[in-house]
Amino acid sequence: MQRRLVAEFIGTFWLVFGGCGAAIFSAAFPQLGIGFVGVAFAFGLTVLSMAYAVGHISGGHFNPAVTLGLWSAGRCANKHVLPYVIVQVVAAIVAAAALYLIASGKPGWVPGGFAANGYGALSPGKFGMASCFFAEFLLTFFFLMIIIGTTSKGAASGFAGIPIGLALTLIHLISIPITNTSVNPARSTGPALFAGGAYTAQLWLFWLAPILGALAAGALARVLWEPMTITETVIIEESRVA
Amino acid sequence: MQRRLVAEFIGTFWLVFGGCGAAIFSAAFPQLGIGFVGVAFAFGLTVLSMAYAVGHISGGHFNPAVTLGLWSAGRCANKHVLPYVIVQVVAAIVAAAALYLIASGKPGWVPGGFAANGYGALSPGKFGMASCFFAEFLLTFFFLMIIIGTTSKGAASGFAGIPIGLALTLIHLISIPITNTSVNPARSTGPALFAGGAYTAQLWLFWLAPILGALAAGALARVLWEPMTITETVIIEESRVA
Amino acid sequence: MQRRLVAEFIGTFWLVFGGCGAAIFSAAFPQLGIGFVGVAFAFGLTVLSMAYAVGHISGGHFNPAVTLGLWSAGRCANKHVLPYVIVQVVAAIVAAAALYLIASGKPGWVPGGFAANGYGALSPGKFGMASCFFAEFLLTFFFLMIIIGTTSKGAASGFAGIPIGLALTLIHLISIPITNTSVNPARSTGPALFAGGAYTAQLWLFWLAPILGALAAGALARVLWEPMTITETVIIEESRVA
Amino acid sequence: MQRRLVAEFIGTFWLVFGGCGAAIFSAAFPQLGIGFVGVAFAFGLTVLSMAYAVGHISGGHFNPAVTLGLWSAGRCANKHVLPYVIVQVVAAIVAAAALYLIASGKPGWVPGGFAANGYGALSPGKFGMASCFFAEFLLTFFFLMIIIGTTSKGAASGFAGIPIGLALTLIHLISIPITNTSVNPARSTGPALFAGGAYTAQLWLFWLAPILGALAAGALARVLWEPMTITETVIIEESRVA
Repeated sequence: MQRRLVAEFIGTFWLVFGGCGAAIFSAAFPQLGIGFVGVAFAFGLTVLSMAYAVGHISGGHFNPAVTLGLWSAGRCANKHVLPYVIVQVVAAIVAAAALYLIASGKPGWVPGGFAANGYGALSPGKFGMASCFFAEFLLTFFFLMIIIGTTSKGAASGFAGIPIGLALTLIHLISIPITNTSVNPARSTGPALFAGGAYTAQLWLFWLAPILGALAAGALARVLWEPMTITETVIIEESRVA
Repeated sequence: MQRRLVAEFIGTFWLVFGGCGAAIFSAAFPQLGIGFVGVAFAFGLTVLSMAYAVGHISGGHFNPAVTLGLWSAGRCANKHVLPYVIVQVVAAIVAAAALYLIASGKPGWVPGGFAANGYGALSPGKFGMASCFFAEFLLTFFFLMIIIGTTSKGAASGFAGIPIGLALTLIHLISIPITNTSVNPARSTGPALFAGGAYTAQLWLFWLAPILGALAAGALARVLWEPMTITETVIIEESRVA
Repeated sequence: MQRRLVAEFIGTFWLVFGGCGAAIFSAAFPQLGIGFVGVAFAFGLTVLSMAYAVGHISGGHFNPAVTLGLWSAGRCANKHVLPYVIVQVVAAIVAAAALYLIASGKPGWVPGGFAANGYGALSPGKFGMASCFFAEFLLTFFFLMIIIGTTSKGAASGFAGIPIGLALTLIHLISIPITNTSVNPARSTGPALFAGGAYTAQLWLFWLAPILGALAAGALARVLWEPMTITETVIIEESRVA
Repeated sequence: MQRRLVAEFIGTFWLVFGGCGAAIFSAAFPQLGIGFVGVAFAFGLTVLSMAYAVGHISGGHFNPAVTLGLWSAGRCANKHVLPYVIVQVVAAIVAAAALYLIASGKPGWVPGGFAANGYGALSPGKFGMASCFFAEFLLTFFFLMIIIGTTSKGAASGFAGIPIGLALTLIHLISIPITNTSVNPARSTGPALFAGGAYTAQLWLFWLAPILGALAAGALARVLWEPMTITETVIIEESRVA
């Protein structure tokens, strides 16, 4: 269990540090900046790299919505849910702190939005709350469908880290202008704490919408892919940990 | 059969929602927008991710031209063709509606081209009808050659989702300026309904050219890759569904 | 043999049509254009996709320098060299003609450089002949090292198409400003014929430098990777063809 | 041993030539330049391509920090450390010389920063020394975690080159504005020699920070992934060489 939690900490730290770091440091660099395309690849590659590095230890969730979605699909043991979620949130906050430390070493730097998520006035493209909620719900729903589908019986073995990581890239390509893209409550929580009160007041949406989307995906997944008994799933999950 | 159709619905929805969504929300965002490169990756990654997620359920067509090309190559049972195509078109329309719902939540938003395909005056680069027809024919032809080739006996097993998805990225890198890139009649139909009459009047080309290209590829594929009897193919196809 | 040549024709057509097409249609599109990054990915993805689609039929050369480099490494039978090279050049010319046909359907279009390669005054960044020669030599040398290394005994099986394709992307990321990137005499020949006399007069460099680089790589490869007798190699090569 | 060193030479040359070459020639090309996104992909693809080409010969380090991190994790024999590091540094210098040769063939060209790494006044975004040290430490730490994790027992076999290469892309997406991204003392040394005294005076940081990060990762890796005795590891390492 301890190894699992260390793995989730490392993976979630990397997701927030890498994805939000690319947004903070590189997105708007004059002339040569990476723009939303670069940020989208950064987020996806954090997951792609960590899925192969520590996915065989913890399952590679790095995201409370993923943990709950897999639990809803019958693929995550009850006892893992809470510890996973807590470690993910802590890792996200520590990662945001590390970004703050580095960024503040640039003379004259001010945090600004600090890659936090937002709706309405805080949406990069000023999309209203309902649009943002629906987008986060839908994108997390599909993210979980891809995670569950690519790791199901019948799917090509060993490949899952590639479609899962690049699906997160795709999700950012679609929705950075809408909400700055969350689909991950932990990723939303870390930067919001450093971006200030206006952002933390909107955090509820980035917990609620992704988690509802994930739970819905988990429920449909039980129907679409071969049903397994919980016992079987837990055995499979345990056997993935060397 | 029902599981197949659900899989085709999910995959085609994702293709249209993700690809066209990236175009609508992110392509022209001031300064940080993803441009045609980002849209090209978005389309490709929808297919890459869904090929691994639900490809083992339905074959992962998500495109009436692909369904007809595979049928022409002797790799899709007659009874699947019509249901697949209908579900794909419905999914594309629902996806376009979801995009419309989200996009209309931005104050002052107007649909514009809504990522629809077009030729002549509606071609992004003002290419004439003949150029657009030839481009769509040729690109769909090669798309099908890649789909059939990478899933043939002798091809490296498990990898096909990567070259197929990234081939769709490549096709967009070439041809967004020409037709806004279709190679997929369902993808053309969904957005056209929301982009208005001028676009729907041009829909015929984005059904005809891709399908002709796909049928031609299927015919050549029978010669280039090892011929199988229809019985063998159907057995193979059925055995892919767990 | 006929199937091999059809495969080389399709693959080389796709390389020139896709890579040069992205350059001609999309690179400099106002505001949303794909730039050199998009062209680099386009070239790489033509090879990545066709390596998986027809690589198991012909070996997936699509490039006279590759054919000669593999021959020099003892991995291509003598009898294949000339037919492969001829088919590759023909396919490149036909692909350039197809591009010309589509491009000329845009009112007011003029061919310009037509994605041809050049040095000196025709180098995109005005690099001198010696720099261009050295760059083409070196880049083709490394391209062949990667092709041979990734398909050697001991390399991870099935993956080769990914590093080979993306190595071509990398090569373009480095050298489009230098020579517009060739490393492939066939790719240079097709567009040059449509770009006019100044370009065809420089074609010699884009045959000589890549081929010398490839031959050097083939010679070193015999030392670096496990030597095989020609008989063994030919058996291996033949056995790849179903 | 000789084959190993040739492999490390080729791989490290390619890393510096490809990554720094893309930065020097293509990053800031007018209008069509590849920007930091293109440079990030170039660096990552050098490693991705060479990991599959020569990784099975030498382990594919191409980086003194990687060699020392793997040694610290008990995965590199003592006797290999020094020869590997020397060859890597020599290869990086030769690669920088080759870049200099090509670049100087452009009339009016001046070396400028020559893709060297720097902090403070020489940081692209003017980040202070402490920020740069911390960033290099942290990024190398995670790079090694990914390298070790993806090549551990339990990780999907054959895939490691993809997450490792793309992790280097990700690291560049985050940190080019901070230090121009090193995480590799050899890569820092080559270009610094051609960029002049101000840059060489800062080289110490790009040796110290990455190596400390790598050693820390190696130490943690012994705890996180299954411990192996040194004997076992060396046997594994040796057996990778055909």
